[in-house]
Amino acid sequence: MSKTIELAQHLEKLHINNMYKSDFYWTWDKTDEELDAIFTVADALRDLRERNRSTRVFDSGLGISIFRDNSTRTRFSFASACNLLGLTVRDLDEKTSQIAHGETVRETANMVSFMAEVIGIRDDMYIGEGHKYQKTFMDAVKEGYRDGILEQQPTLVNLQCDVDHPTQCMADLLHVIHHFGGVEHLKGKKVAMTWAYSPSYGKPLSVPQGVIGLFTRFGMDVVLAHPEGYDVMPEVEEIARKNAEATGGSYRRAGTMAEAFQGADIVYPKSWAPFAAMEERTKLYQAGDQAGIHALEQRLLAQNALHKDWTCSEEMMKRTKDGKALYLHCLPADISGLSCPEGEVDNSVFDRYLVPLYKEASYKPYIIAAMIFMAKVKDPVAALMALDQGGKRRLF
Amino acid sequence: MSKTIELAQHLEKLHINNMYKSDFYWTWDKTDEELDAIFTVADALRDLRERNRSTRVFDSGLGISIFRDNSTRTRFSFASACNLLGLTVRDLDEKTSQIAHGETVRETANMVSFMAEVIGIRDDMYIGEGHKYQKTFMDAVKEGYRDGILEQQPTLVNLQCDVDHPTQCMADLLHVIHHFGGVEHLKGKKVAMTWAYSPSYGKPLSVPQGVIGLFTRFGMDVVLAHPEGYDVMPEVEEIARKNAEATGGSYRRAGTMAEAFQGADIVYPKSWAPFAAMEERTKLYQAGDQAGIHALEQRLLAQNALHKDWTCSEEMMKRTKDGKALYLHCLPADISGLSCPEGEVDNSVFDRYLVPLYKEASYKPYIIAAMIFMAKVKDPVAALMALDQGGKRRLF
Amino acid sequence: MSKTIELAQHLEKLHINNMYKSDFYWTWDKTDEELDAIFTVADALRDLRERNRSTRVFDSGLGISIFRDNSTRTRFSFASACNLLGLTVRDLDEKTSQIAHGETVRETANMVSFMAEVIGIRDDMYIGEGHKYQKTFMDAVKEGYRDGILEQQPTLVNLQCDVDHPTQCMADLLHVIHHFGGVEHLKGKKVAMTWAYSPSYGKPLSVPQGVIGLFTRFGMDVVLAHPEGYDVMPEVEEIARKNAEATGGSYRRAGTMAEAFQGADIVYPKSWAPFAAMEERTKLYQAGDQAGIHALEQRLLAQNALHKDWTCSEEMMKRTKDGKALYLHCLPADISGLSCPEGEVDNSVFDRYLVPLYKEASYKPYIIAAMIFMAKVKDPVAALMALDQGGKRRLF
Repeated sequence: MSKTIELAQHLEKLHINNMYKSDFYWTWDKTDEELDAIFTVADALRDLRERNRSTRVFDSGLGISIFRDNSTRTRFSFASACNLLGLTVRDLDEKTSQIAHGETVRETANMVSFMAEVIGIRDDMYIGEGHKYQKTFMDAVKEGYRDGILEQQPTLVNLQCDVDHPTQCMADLLHVIHHFGGVEHLKGKKVAMTWAYSPSYGKPLSVPQGVIGLFTRFGMDVVLAHPEGYDVMPEVEEIARKNAEATGGSYRRAGTMAEAFQGADIVYPKSWAPFAAMEERTKLYQAGDQAGIHALEQRLLAQNALHKDWTCSEEMMKRTKDGKALYLHCLPADISGLSCPEGEVDNSVFDRYLVPLYKEASYKPYIIAAMIFMAKVKDPVAALMALDQGGKRRLF
Repeated sequence: MSKTIELAQHLEKLHINNMYKSDFYWTWDKTDEELDAIFTVADALRDLRERNRSTRVFDSGLGISIFRDNSTRTRFSFASACNLLGLTVRDLDEKTSQIAHGETVRETANMVSFMAEVIGIRDDMYIGEGHKYQKTFMDAVKEGYRDGILEQQPTLVNLQCDVDHPTQCMADLLHVIHHFGGVEHLKGKKVAMTWAYSPSYGKPLSVPQGVIGLFTRFGMDVVLAHPEGYDVMPEVEEIARKNAEATGGSYRRAGTMAEAFQGADIVYPKSWAPFAAMEERTKLYQAGDQAGIHALEQRLLAQNALHKDWTCSEEMMKRTKDGKALYLHCLPADISGLSCPEGEVDNSVFDRYLVPLYKEASYKPYIIAAMIFMAKVKDPVAALMALDQGGKRRLF
Repeated sequence: MSKTIELAQHLEKLHINNMYKSDFYWTWDKTDEELDAIFTVADALRDLRERNRSTRVFDSGLGISIFRDNSTRTRFSFASACNLLGLTVRDLDEKTSQIAHGETVRETANMVSFMAEVIGIRDDMYIGEGHKYQKTFMDAVKEGYRDGILEQQPTLVNLQCDVDHPTQCMADLLHVIHHFGGVEHLKGKKVAMTWAYSPSYGKPLSVPQGVIGLFTRFGMDVVLAHPEGYDVMPEVEEIARKNAEATGGSYRRAGTMAEAFQGADIVYPKSWAPFAAMEERTKLYQAGDQAGIHALEQRLLAQNALHKDWTCSEEMMKRTKDGKALYLHCLPADISGLSCPEGEVDNSVFDRYLVPLYKEASYKPYIIAAMIFMAKVKDPVAALMALDQGGKRRLF
């Protein structure tokens, strides 16, 4: 029996009826079995592809991508996922469109969605805005579908918002699952999600938030550490706490990177901006206050620079479990001595983890494809079986 | 019998031999039966899609799009139409190409067309230029095909020129046909195509011209109204007059918006620039006279502002048939109190017609796909039958 | 028997085992039989397409294109080739990506390649840089494949580097082969690869280098001519010399355009920059010395202007074999009196050769497709047979 058939049989046992036609905003919207379904389908699609089976469930259809911030890997991951399933990506480039001419989000959403199966949106720059934009967009297409404007209901894949970065964090976790040989081995593992120094400014909070909101669901001991003033959203911490409680794991804060790293099985040292400063920035942008934005940037860079000791050095790594914790990063990292003089991680540490880091990233297209698959295919079990046994090759 | 089969049977009765390998510049180039064929195929493709049938008549091939002006909905409509039929869109972006390096239109046309099945061009900015560019481009590829450079003859879909906007106007009309329950119910309906105030400058004339050139072919009473100085091209008015005569309808001008709206079944209030001013602008652009362009813009905005009473207000709507005329717009509209302080239409009017307006827009991808289908598929009746009965699903 | 079957039978006799999973950097990396295979497959794909056979060997997969310089025809040729085989092109636009944020080439290469079958790179601006970039990129994906990060090994099509322009030169040569009725008729033909005056600055050397490196392999008498100071890379001249020796042809330099054109069967007059100046420019760019770059540009334009007599005039053409040599150009050309006052070629000469020139260009998509086909399809003979006999139509 192929791995895909085994995975399809596992999928069959899960309660996943609510996934069809559903949007993927945040991992904590989804049940454990729904997350399990995403991981299962991601693995199955990878297995099918490795065996040169066609995984096209679409004969035609568009995937619309909206990137309100630059992106390489997420852009290519979305394009790869769509291609894998048979969808064609069309980027909504707000610069070459007429959107600036006063078109509403509601109108745009409908106008680009006549043949859209899935909408991928990245809007992570402004606290309080990213998720709101995604929600407004998707409410509009849902209404459009209900009113008979759209013949199919496009579904969302959140490609990063101000709150969560689910495609990243689920790829991270699938990597962790495979690294430790199965989800059943995660219980009790210590995870250090820590801030790290970066010479750049205003990195989103969605990764640390996504990580504490997701990793706490698997019985792991999750520690968040950051310098004073770099708090994440309290609502997400609350979710992390509840998750930990429900799964027999734990969630707590540590005061230093060293404390968080102590005995950790997994470390995720990464820079982010202070939540309060990001709120301030959003207001400055809304007010068009360029001088204020510039002053804030200078202030934040100076604040960052006070914490250059928060770096994933060789010394720091030695504190982890056998000195060999699994090092995670969403990439690109600020690598000391390579991409910047002082940054998030020592070059020697980063370099040692290069292959696992790239493998971590390699799960993202499959996670996205699985999210699309579960939202669009009515009978995903039958579809996997058919792809496995249909015998259609991907490449001659 | 499926709706598609019925439509295919209707198509079979039409005289449409000249459509194969033909370009679509203006609706008035086409016979009534040819327009009927476009509407018929558009409906059939929509029916097939609604029933999850694959509509791919192409296994590979490119659709080339050239947008010499910003665009959201036409861009996505063209992409959707191509995708629906199995073509991949490639945008010819004149900024990242070598065209600026002195390449002729003739050369570019051939160089991008080696695998091109269809060319979609939007060039609506300069009076006397848009159509000319499209013609030069298509003459070049026709010659290229004749000379054995191209192995297939790419055909044109005019995505808006300075004269007509056929994909828009045919989508508008298909919406009208469905709204009134069939083309046979259009006879005697009163259509008010009127100018409306907008705070923006230099909107193309192709929509009003396209509407009077097309809607007069169905026995309707078409009234064009605009302030003094906002005349459209006289050649197109002449076509409208002849059309009306031939179909037992009428075409006339009214002096005020109120007069045009009186008793109207359909209203299309929309801003456009004065033809003479657009001719002047074209010359200024050709001369590179930036100061002149700026002065003209200021003059036109001031001239527009004299006619703020030309707006589709609630009061104005009350004059229409039972106060409930079908409100049309090509979108995006300038909505008073929403996208601008004073514009083409009251927010309350626009909002009441939101669903029909978006449905109107939803026909455009199908109209474009039908134009491509009729120009490229040698036996369209057989193709529709095969798609209906082949049983290939669009989505698993 | 179809032409494709004949070609497949020819392919079967060639020693081409090393082509599977191989990159295409330079023609001189490949054996004669490997080049023969590319030409053979290019002709077969064209034949299949002309007979409306589907040539899709891929059901899904991405072709990644990286253009570090503007391009129309190569961009569209790559897009066409990918589409012909069933791949979807994704442009890596370094402006909208995060590459500027300090990401390494190694990382980018892996991050965009999770579903990439082929990578097409154009990097021709800086001497000593283009090939190096391609090599670094491809070494990274090869490593990624070996380490299990990538499930397939993407292969390279060099879309122009600082050394060679293989897709252009092989398209040129396939045109020559068809023009003279077969590769066996090339022996002893005289080819004049000459510099020509252009009012523009800094054109790459890859075309003249590619031509002397490739055309010398077929027993032709290849002459290179340029004004003093416009030397090409000595390593490539050495290759040309060895090729000529091995095939019974010749390679030599001529001092004037007139001498090179004398009795030529084929002429390729084209501007390029002096190698030494391009080396200087690379250093100035690396140093960010804008003033130096500007000064160099002025100096080079002045130097070019000393050689306006190096132009493919009617007089010059009369010196060629019966006054009717085959005129080649990679396009776009600088045409005297059309795209510039004085340039590479007389308008009347260019115009007379327009159809053959465009045909020359029309081979490029097929050459690229053949390169992809040979690198990705394990059993190309069986694949061609199956495409020929499978009966799947490209267009209904």
